[in-house]
Amino acid sequence: MKLVVLGAAGRMGRTLVKVIAETEGASLHAALERGGSPALGGDAGLLAGIGENGVAIGDDVDAALDGADGIVDFTAPAVSVEMARRAAERRLVHVVGTTGCEAADDAAIRKAADDGATIVKSGNMSLGVNLLAVLVEKAARALGPDAFDIEVLEMHHRHKVDAPSGTALLLGEAAARGRGVALDDRAVRVRDGITGARDAGTIGFATLRGGSVVGEHSVILAGEGERIELSHAAGDRAIFARGAVKAALWAKDRPAGLYTMRDVLGLGD
Amino acid sequence: MKLVVLGAAGRMGRTLVKVIAETEGASLHAALERGGSPALGGDAGLLAGIGENGVAIGDDVDAALDGADGIVDFTAPAVSVEMARRAAERRLVHVVGTTGCEAADDAAIRKAADDGATIVKSGNMSLGVNLLAVLVEKAARALGPDAFDIEVLEMHHRHKVDAPSGTALLLGEAAARGRGVALDDRAVRVRDGITGARDAGTIGFATLRGGSVVGEHSVILAGEGERIELSHAAGDRAIFARGAVKAALWAKDRPAGLYTMRDVLGLGD
Amino acid sequence: MKLVVLGAAGRMGRTLVKVIAETEGASLHAALERGGSPALGGDAGLLAGIGENGVAIGDDVDAALDGADGIVDFTAPAVSVEMARRAAERRLVHVVGTTGCEAADDAAIRKAADDGATIVKSGNMSLGVNLLAVLVEKAARALGPDAFDIEVLEMHHRHKVDAPSGTALLLGEAAARGRGVALDDRAVRVRDGITGARDAGTIGFATLRGGSVVGEHSVILAGEGERIELSHAAGDRAIFARGAVKAALWAKDRPAGLYTMRDVLGLGD
Amino acid sequence: MKLVVLGAAGRMGRTLVKVIAETEGASLHAALERGGSPALGGDAGLLAGIGENGVAIGDDVDAALDGADGIVDFTAPAVSVEMARRAAERRLVHVVGTTGCEAADDAAIRKAADDGATIVKSGNMSLGVNLLAVLVEKAARALGPDAFDIEVLEMHHRHKVDAPSGTALLLGEAAARGRGVALDDRAVRVRDGITGARDAGTIGFATLRGGSVVGEHSVILAGEGERIELSHAAGDRAIFARGAVKAALWAKDRPAGLYTMRDVLGLGD
Repeated sequence: MKLVVLGAAGRMGRTLVKVIAETEGASLHAALERGGSPALGGDAGLLAGIGENGVAIGDDVDAALDGADGIVDFTAPAVSVEMARRAAERRLVHVVGTTGCEAADDAAIRKAADDGATIVKSGNMSLGVNLLAVLVEKAARALGPDAFDIEVLEMHHRHKVDAPSGTALLLGEAAARGRGVALDDRAVRVRDGITGARDAGTIGFATLRGGSVVGEHSVILAGEGERIELSHAAGDRAIFARGAVKAALWAKDRPAGLYTMRDVLGLGD
Repeated sequence: MKLVVLGAAGRMGRTLVKVIAETEGASLHAALERGGSPALGGDAGLLAGIGENGVAIGDDVDAALDGADGIVDFTAPAVSVEMARRAAERRLVHVVGTTGCEAADDAAIRKAADDGATIVKSGNMSLGVNLLAVLVEKAARALGPDAFDIEVLEMHHRHKVDAPSGTALLLGEAAARGRGVALDDRAVRVRDGITGARDAGTIGFATLRGGSVVGEHSVILAGEGERIELSHAAGDRAIFARGAVKAALWAKDRPAGLYTMRDVLGLGD
Repeated sequence: MKLVVLGAAGRMGRTLVKVIAETEGASLHAALERGGSPALGGDAGLLAGIGENGVAIGDDVDAALDGADGIVDFTAPAVSVEMARRAAERRLVHVVGTTGCEAADDAAIRKAADDGATIVKSGNMSLGVNLLAVLVEKAARALGPDAFDIEVLEMHHRHKVDAPSGTALLLGEAAARGRGVALDDRAVRVRDGITGARDAGTIGFATLRGGSVVGEHSVILAGEGERIELSHAAGDRAIFARGAVKAALWAKDRPAGLYTMRDVLGLGD
Repeated sequence: MKLVVLGAAGRMGRTLVKVIAETEGASLHAALERGGSPALGGDAGLLAGIGENGVAIGDDVDAALDGADGIVDFTAPAVSVEMARRAAERRLVHVVGTTGCEAADDAAIRKAADDGATIVKSGNMSLGVNLLAVLVEKAARALGPDAFDIEVLEMHHRHKVDAPSGTALLLGEAAARGRGVALDDRAVRVRDGITGARDAGTIGFATLRGGSVVGEHSVILAGEGERIELSHAAGDRAIFARGAVKAALWAKDRPAGLYTMRDVLGLGD
């Protein structure tokens, strides 16, 4: 499967180039960066630390997509929306790991899937986090809001600029789904000073930042005399790249449509 | 529902007396201890720290069972087998939290259920641990043995005399079931000295002892670059008593048979 | 040592009554509640669940202090300030576990110590937390702000009304002292939305609430490629009562002055 | 400071080559491998993934040491003993991260330090673990054996062949030193079956293996109603290489002798 990597000179892009080279059935078709990037013209393999691979980093999207089977994309919402449109035109696979999409972006991506793109989109591409979301939903359903309080804790490296993480929100959504409520109505994202007692049925978030932590998430369900904690720790960014490439291979012969990592991983509902 | 508590002067028995008093729909019908116990004749409520309740601790089993609806039993295998037989004769509910049963004990209890007793038996009566076992089974099924290693960690107070705990083994069984293997074939219960690399597909156990810890269990599924951890912490023995009384109430109008806490809690499979 | 317990009908007061009864060298001299409390006239031992002890709960402070050696006080700032004044007049020991004191309260308590009271005051009376604070200070000194980020995480039961906990702040103070900075200048108590990257040298706080958790605190020092975590978990409120009674016995023959639990526990600096 | 790296083609050796290139004041003087290694003649920089650096991997020890200031050595006991002898002859710095030394090896290394080598040797070269050992010793001293039970837990990747880890033993030694006892007399390394209650004053070890975990260690001090946990997590092998290079720079102008990482890091006692 011939894949185009977007943002190929960035941290995630270079990891993708490396993982594609290691994955049977996948090959690097083209490597794109935004116009003006100092990396343009450089060898994508050298940049990724895997030795020269003869694929020069370019900024001509049409040239890159000619002859490609799929696109792997951890960029920004506007870029992903535009690439989804092109994937629809060309009947390509489009794997979207971009976070921070607004409702309008999500609608545009869904439309591209209706128009012919085979899209896999998730807030977190790892097997572990997607499984965790399934378990959290199940636990939240079994342990009712009067008896069990739900809290979502996450820790990331000192460079992360937003809080809570997209994955923490994804897990909070899973908990809310298990409870049959809307996360927006129940989320408590700040506690400081005199807060009063905890309201039953809310879903609390707490954020830690420090060092080089790749990403750790815990969902706690705390009741009278007992507590369940469901956690995921990422030790290496490659798990996200491996998940994305796995998604591309899975999507190769699927009909057009919008899929999630749950579909890819066969985690059902 | 009129309940008979066995071992009513012990730590678990006294907790049961207290929880029954707090539970709507349940009442203490009789409180038993073994013949010769210094507690015989004492008031069960006073012993449980809830004030006199007029139920004297006795050792006459037949007198205790006359007019009762159910038995709650955290004792020893031989006692539980005998009580199951009597529960069958009298068509009673029998909740069995006893651990350490051999195959022959389990067979005798099953026979009592065939003969007319409505029995709920589990290695751990808490809602949380039983839910955790369901989640562990699901996770072990989704994360295959070549990619993910399973470890079970537990910590209990310094007085505990056996290792690993019955609950750790219950969780190991859940993991083995998810993998479609037999725990006895895969369990690694000791690591010391030159062990060699870990064998894929094994299920490891590790044990901590100290202080007054009521009971903590974690199941870890560790793969390349990521790890899932599913944990339960008990802060108070009352959760086991509450689970047992809940089981008794649930079983009240059920047909005779052998049930588990999964059935009681509606956790399905 | 003859001790007066304040707030004797409250959760902490009853635990104190129980712990005093169990502690060699300590006895309950009087048990006070605020005027109008429905507990007035009741037996302090019965209320504490340890059987009648003949000490009626009263509201006459002077009568209670006559013949006493010391006061144990987990109440409110205004009460503690007033009791410190009386302890100074009568040259008594005064153990203060009250939290939420403002600077003016602290000054009044310090003045009482100068005037003749032997006062032990701490934001947390447990051995473990006070030792942890010593270790945190040492770690924060050894691991400088450019290389290591400090975060303080705490979890408490759903009924707690303030955040972060007094103990979390006490640990943050210890970290700040180790770094030679003022906590007020460095504390980050809220993260939500686009926060930007973490500023070096700050001390972050995160709060979890749920279930019946007595109190858990972690101080994390996260650097490039490694992380230290120093934690304390309380499983039982009695540890705070035991610490307070230990402090009273320790203070018995000390000269007047203001002491901390570090002094009592011999943790030095 | 001109450094010679031993085992330069191995995982730790390549990390050392990379870290030396990144460290101001340090340069790679020579890179050694054992005779017969397929890496002989290759470029040490290329192997380390940092681009060609012109240092060919060789097996001529004398040639490598000519003109060098120090040796960095994570190899095997026999090699380290021999290199210490040579470091003594040439008055060099020798940083030894080798584990598994027997008493005779340690004696030979100590003799080399007496004979003129400036040696820094430690079971773990990271700042964090060495600080943790200091904290553990302090905590074990403050929390006596009758009241607090000490447990050491560690987790490493599935390829690790021995248990408990050298670092777990180092932390156990620190705890024993704090208690004024010998670890060999108190260590409990296996629990399985009917163990009986925990003996006061023992130090327990528990081992987890799985996935790609670089190394995690926790020392737990568990008492009645409270627990302290002191933990270290390594996310990246580079912390050990950075510690070793830091040790070499620190040792440069020190008198001959045997030092530890505590000396390097100024952690005193």
